[in-house]
Amino acid sequence: MFHLLEKLKEKVLQANIALEDFNLVTFTWGNASGIDRDSGLVVIKPSGVPYKNLTKEKLVVLNMEGHVVEGNLKPSSDLPTHIELYKSFPEIGGIVHTHSPWATIWAQAGKFIPPLGTTHADYFYGSIPCTRALTATEINRNYEQETGKLIVETFKDIDYRQVPGVLVNSHAPFNWGVDPQEAVHNAVVLEEVSKMAFRSLQINNGLRPMNQVLLDKHYLRKHGVNAYYGQ
Amino acid sequence: MFHLLEKLKEKVLQANIALEDFNLVTFTWGNASGIDRDSGLVVIKPSGVPYKNLTKEKLVVLNMEGHVVEGNLKPSSDLPTHIELYKSFPEIGGIVHTHSPWATIWAQAGKFIPPLGTTHADYFYGSIPCTRALTATEINRNYEQETGKLIVETFKDIDYRQVPGVLVNSHAPFNWGVDPQEAVHNAVVLEEVSKMAFRSLQINNGLRPMNQVLLDKHYLRKHGVNAYYGQ
Amino acid sequence: MFHLLEKLKEKVLQANIALEDFNLVTFTWGNASGIDRDSGLVVIKPSGVPYKNLTKEKLVVLNMEGHVVEGNLKPSSDLPTHIELYKSFPEIGGIVHTHSPWATIWAQAGKFIPPLGTTHADYFYGSIPCTRALTATEINRNYEQETGKLIVETFKDIDYRQVPGVLVNSHAPFNWGVDPQEAVHNAVVLEEVSKMAFRSLQINNGLRPMNQVLLDKHYLRKHGVNAYYGQ
Amino acid sequence: MFHLLEKLKEKVLQANIALEDFNLVTFTWGNASGIDRDSGLVVIKPSGVPYKNLTKEKLVVLNMEGHVVEGNLKPSSDLPTHIELYKSFPEIGGIVHTHSPWATIWAQAGKFIPPLGTTHADYFYGSIPCTRALTATEINRNYEQETGKLIVETFKDIDYRQVPGVLVNSHAPFNWGVDPQEAVHNAVVLEEVSKMAFRSLQINNGLRPMNQVLLDKHYLRKHGVNAYYGQ
Repeated sequence: MFHLLEKLKEKVLQANIALEDFNLVTFTWGNASGIDRDSGLVVIKPSGVPYKNLTKEKLVVLNMEGHVVEGNLKPSSDLPTHIELYKSFPEIGGIVHTHSPWATIWAQAGKFIPPLGTTHADYFYGSIPCTRALTATEINRNYEQETGKLIVETFKDIDYRQVPGVLVNSHAPFNWGVDPQEAVHNAVVLEEVSKMAFRSLQINNGLRPMNQVLLDKHYLRKHGVNAYYGQ
Repeated sequence: MFHLLEKLKEKVLQANIALEDFNLVTFTWGNASGIDRDSGLVVIKPSGVPYKNLTKEKLVVLNMEGHVVEGNLKPSSDLPTHIELYKSFPEIGGIVHTHSPWATIWAQAGKFIPPLGTTHADYFYGSIPCTRALTATEINRNYEQETGKLIVETFKDIDYRQVPGVLVNSHAPFNWGVDPQEAVHNAVVLEEVSKMAFRSLQINNGLRPMNQVLLDKHYLRKHGVNAYYGQ
Repeated sequence: MFHLLEKLKEKVLQANIALEDFNLVTFTWGNASGIDRDSGLVVIKPSGVPYKNLTKEKLVVLNMEGHVVEGNLKPSSDLPTHIELYKSFPEIGGIVHTHSPWATIWAQAGKFIPPLGTTHADYFYGSIPCTRALTATEINRNYEQETGKLIVETFKDIDYRQVPGVLVNSHAPFNWGVDPQEAVHNAVVLEEVSKMAFRSLQINNGLRPMNQVLLDKHYLRKHGVNAYYGQ
Repeated sequence: MFHLLEKLKEKVLQANIALEDFNLVTFTWGNASGIDRDSGLVVIKPSGVPYKNLTKEKLVVLNMEGHVVEGNLKPSSDLPTHIELYKSFPEIGGIVHTHSPWATIWAQAGKFIPPLGTTHADYFYGSIPCTRALTATEINRNYEQETGKLIVETFKDIDYRQVPGVLVNSHAPFNWGVDPQEAVHNAVVLEEVSKMAFRSLQINNGLRPMNQVLLDKHYLRKHGVNAYYGQ
């Protein structure tokens, strides 16, 4: 297990650094985590530490109850959200949260992003949902954990493996993937898709979602047993 | 022929690398190809390979039937679209496909780009068309080839030499030129023109196309026997 | 005191350089200052000097009456605005003024920025106000000082410690903080918040401010005795 | 005179290179020139040559009749426009033409840019005008010279020294100054002002021009005998 965690720490470290390289974050407004499913241990960014100062030693290792197993720093304040997602989405191995500006404007507007073109369809099999607003009770109870539960509720009728991201109402996006790198990748795609959907709707604000057959074609060209994109 | 193909491979390699340098692509969302008209061989980017990892050896050489003549990697999944264009547009020597964001928003909106100023007129002799949507039958038959046929259909009454690019509905742009470098050049121009048309129409959404006499003047200042721009 | 001022000069120097690093300024369109509360001395950028040419020796040291104590160059023409703010906002230690483009468009439009999401709430505890326009009399009297008085008037019913920035009508933003670095930090946040509010309102121009309970939660997660963000 | 021209060539060279450094140009879409008023000689960029390949030797020196005095390359195709401006605006020493995207969208929309804030007022003493469209006759006569005459006509009731730039309808901006460097500087300001005016009007499309007293204050703070900005 020791070796696995070292590899996972390296992945989580690189994923956090990548957030800045891909221009998804200002200051420390974002965090990436990863999970080792065998041990149930989560590795996450420490709270408020600049990306360029991160090292593997500064990452925090916790169990699913949120108890620190390794590390001297406080974990990201969004940790309870990550844990809820790891609990309810069993096939994901990495999570990314940022305030990336294009995705965040949709979250602030409280709107889902409809599929308008093949860039969207290549990664997200349908609309990218926006959660309902949290109630005052939920906010005051255990805010970050409730945010996680809210995301899970939002995916009641959506397959989280086919729509690897969400907009949290009045807040910002979360993305996930089979590992921290794929979560970052999906966060970059979400940012690009958010930007292009915004502008396409400004050209034509009555624009309808793309043809479902084309959506199927592109999603399945890249995903599943009949995928034929890449090597 | 060997020497010609080496030169063509070098051009195709540089054209693919240029897609990233000109900020036309995210991840591997784009590909450039070139054709040797004498031998009828096409050189194209391999599918899903990052631009910075490309070498001449990784490029794929195919004949017009799509059979691989040289190379160990799978060609870009958009290959059949490229081949259709090479078959129907006999004077082009290079093709570029990207999801460059400003052009793509027009494709997603399903709208052609009207000529609104001399930047447009310097390169595109009239509106830049957007294809109709593919039918479900076309998508399910041979999607990438049908996309090529759709582009050709769109140019039934347009001279592909004078309008070196198209927006594929719900998808993204294709550009072409006498060689891969000119195709890249036209893709950069399309991106710039797409951005400026979008914003000019936001200032005045009733804006009419530019004066045809001015369009003629600028296009013919740069193209054809009476051109006088450049050295 | 000598040692204190040397440290303050270094902070003011770095704050001015940071304006360019964070893309908040074009040419010399911005200035940062700091104050030593014990001596009542203010250190500010010299007028019209490019950021890359700045040194500690070129900074200007003045007392609260605006008399130069040290330095051979003329201070920023906005000095009297800074002094008014230092006089009326006793807990601030640094001020930044720029024409950063996203914040400036709100100032030009004469509109306050409503809180639309947690990025805003993490730093600004409520709307970011826009001043009324100055009267002709005020402009012709002592323009830069009147600008400072106008900002103070705008904060009559707002706690300047909880809303560390303002939009000056038809002009541009001012930000402040406990030291020059925090003022720069708040200027970067304001720019990001201005951009995202603009775009969220374009998605939904009837968008209402965020839930007050969520605003409280995020602001107080980062500020005050119960803050738990960071190390 | 030889020495003067060497200095002027250096200025024109640096001004052309600066167009790219300030992101005002794509490919070779822009040119800068300068004039030696004593000899009446104009130095201008050669047509279609990339900025990074420019040297003083490649610049073209011409007299006011457009006859080449020095240089082996063809001058910018926009030369006759520059010459018309040098003839009619006796106090300018440098001219810049680009297709910088924010200014160009206003030119394409055929709209002048109203003064909406102090950034504008610091450099342009009133609206930045947009010319009328050229007639077919004018376009077919001597297009580039007619463009220059059109600009001069547009400034019939505007002081070209106080408004150092113009939007040419369906085309793009021209800027000028006392030397090529000031012309570049004004082109950068125009781009910034164009962007901010566009966005302020999107926040409030009924926005009125700024207070004339404030416009006076800012313009005269930087220009004329009572200026007090800078060292």
